Amino acid sequence: MPKTMEFWFEFASTYSYLAAEHIGDRARQAGVEVTWRPFLLGPIFAAQGWRDSPFNIYPAKGRYMWRDMDRLCAHYGLPFRKPSAFPRNGLMASRLTLVGMAEGWGPAFVQAVYRANFADDLDIGNAEVLSSILTDLGVQPDAAMDKATSSAIKESLKAQTERAMTLGIFGAPSFIVGAELFWGHDRLDHALAWAQTH
Amino acid sequence: MPKTMEFWFEFASTYSYLAAEHIGDRARQAGVEVTWRPFLLGPIFAAQGWRDSPFNIYPAKGRYMWRDMDRLCAHYGLPFRKPSAFPRNGLMASRLTLVGMAEGWGPAFVQAVYRANFADDLDIGNAEVLSSILTDLGVQPDAAMDKATSSAIKESLKAQTERAMTLGIFGAPSFIVGAELFWGHDRLDHALAWAQTH
Repeated sequence: MPKTMEFWFEFASTYSYLAAEHIGDRARQAGVEVTWRPFLLGPIFAAQGWRDSPFNIYPAKGRYMWRDMDRLCAHYGLPFRKPSAFPRNGLMASRLTLVGMAEGWGPAFVQAVYRANFADDLDIGNAEVLSSILTDLGVQPDAAMDKATSSAIKESLKAQTERAMTLGIFGAPSFIVGAELFWGHDRLDHALAWAQTH
Repeated sequence: MPKTMEFWFEFASTYSYLAAEHIGDRARQAGVEVTWRPFLLGPIFAAQGWRDSPFNIYPAKGRYMWRDMDRLCAHYGLPFRKPSAFPRNGLMASRLTLVGMAEGWGPAFVQAVYRANFADDLDIGNAEVLSSILTDLGVQPDAAMDKATSSAIKESLKAQTERAMTLGIFGAPSFIVGAELFWGHDRLDHALAWAQTH
């Protein structure tokens, strides 16, 4: 039986950008199959009384996170620019990801959306930005957008976010291996090692 | 000039236990001199509106942290038992640490206090528990306690906690290298690498 892991990410999450860049290669090296699961942190944060990103609510934590991202992206050789708006709305991008996962262009789309947000400072909530990303990937944007706004996909994203809450997920990125939850880009290797040995 | 780093820790912090166990060897290998700086998170949390540990305020985060500690301690071969009371009061232990840092028994005392709290489930706010730890280290407990309750040491801990806030510290463990802040046991190696190269 192949070793498997679920990768839970939210498009507004800076550290999910790092995970989306690294998980493909690391999982291949580890021989672990990854299921990519977009979800929304908004409803989960709202359930614990937050109406904004904790990085905005707690300024010291926010200042630290941006500096940490600067240093980590320099360390990993990834492009990074603090976006002029944060957090950006990842609803449409998440729905498109569900379409892309069924059609084979999901992971490349996810990585392109993260780069648009965190390297190119583009509004990933804007349909034109998303259309342009789809076109670059050779995906017909209108058809993908139509599917992404179907009630089936809308319900599917809603159900996935509810499942995240049931799994005890409270932040992103998160990794699920069996009954185990791992939180944060810095737990990616631990989660992969767990998948290999359990 | 020797490379240097400040290690900021709070006795109620679970992840600081991991850092206190690892920092000695890692820093020696890296050729970095470490200054151990106890401080209190209570006033810092209170300033952002928390009257308790965030791991108690946010249950999903708390459940995750305990499981994460279980797994990490197993991984590192460190003893760990979820304490029956959390967070415990580290005020007296922090004052004693300031005495110990001046007298050369600081790091060993810090490690023993963390083990008492997180491996042996002892109340580190209790003077008898602390006296027993001091005796085991060959330190005369009454003399150390007298110094620890002097106004000089009390003021010194207060000033250190205020300095932590000025430095932008919002959690523990934290590492300071020059003007750079690193937060979390999982940033220890990054902080040491920064100290080596800057």
